[in-house]
Amino acid sequence: MRHDELLDANCAISRAAAILGERWVISILRAAFFRARTFEEYQRTTGVARNILTDRLNRLVTAGVLERRVYEQHANRALHEYRLTEAGLDLYPVIATLMTWGNKHGGFVHGPPIELVHQTCGQVTEPVLTCSGCGEPLDPRQVRPRPGPGAATASPRMTAPPETPA
Amino acid sequence: MRHDELLDANCAISRAAAILGERWVISILRAAFFRARTFEEYQRTTGVARNILTDRLNRLVTAGVLERRVYEQHANRALHEYRLTEAGLDLYPVIATLMTWGNKHGGFVHGPPIELVHQTCGQVTEPVLTCSGCGEPLDPRQVRPRPGPGAATASPRMTAPPETPA
Repeated sequence: MRHDELLDANCAISRAAAILGERWVISILRAAFFRARTFEEYQRTTGVARNILTDRLNRLVTAGVLERRVYEQHANRALHEYRLTEAGLDLYPVIATLMTWGNKHGGFVHGPPIELVHQTCGQVTEPVLTCSGCGEPLDPRQVRPRPGPGAATASPRMTAPPETPA
Repeated sequence: MRHDELLDANCAISRAAAILGERWVISILRAAFFRARTFEEYQRTTGVARNILTDRLNRLVTAGVLERRVYEQHANRALHEYRLTEAGLDLYPVIATLMTWGNKHGGFVHGPPIELVHQTCGQVTEPVLTCSGCGEPLDPRQVRPRPGPGAATASPRMTAPPETPA
């Protein structure tokens, strides 16, 4: 199977993996959540080679996770910024849980490089995955998958909403 | 920067991305959570080419996310199975939040292909990321990063614990 065929799979994880499971995409999304906007800001934050960065930004725009907007117009060219869409912001739990895992298993002998402060309560927070039904923390051993409403019928390959006109 | 240099970064997300941000790794982890064990089970579940699957399984063992165990010994060869370690099980929130995102944005016009049932309360569940301090759902706009205890001092590249002897 080719990696882009994951976009056709009747599996939510596979379709998410089609986008996030490419080198540098997680680093780029991290930069976006840390407020990178221009190509240069993404390049400086991630250290990714420019040709690869161009490819990944285009993919993330195509997938509807980032949107490209003109923020400065010159006679010959426009300067673009890349911002998270609502779908992009919805990836926050993925980024936050990656951070939690990295803090625990990343070999940080001096403790987490970054802490998250929850403005609402003022405390340093570690994201906890809880059940939408009962509110208790979710232990994988207590969770079972079963076919859902979309199990029987394949859905078309995921596509992004049309880009906002410049 | 080379992709494996993410393992040196003083950033939890980057170190997690060094492992998960490779093609097919998320699919393989998904298979592990869905109880794949042998090489053939992983290959059948993911559809990944055998040489790539070999590489990824080895990487995940090196990273301490999967462990390789002999489950059957023959005169000439041993058959191995690949199981999630405690560190691998700790990736559950990442996989669950990827599924949630994929269900919402993956273009599943007929609904989620898979539902998760929380055995503890018996309800279909959607994982909710909550604050460890106050228990409220975490909105990215209400969360601020700040330097943590490990910010000032670089930690050595992350390595896996030694493999369990066969």
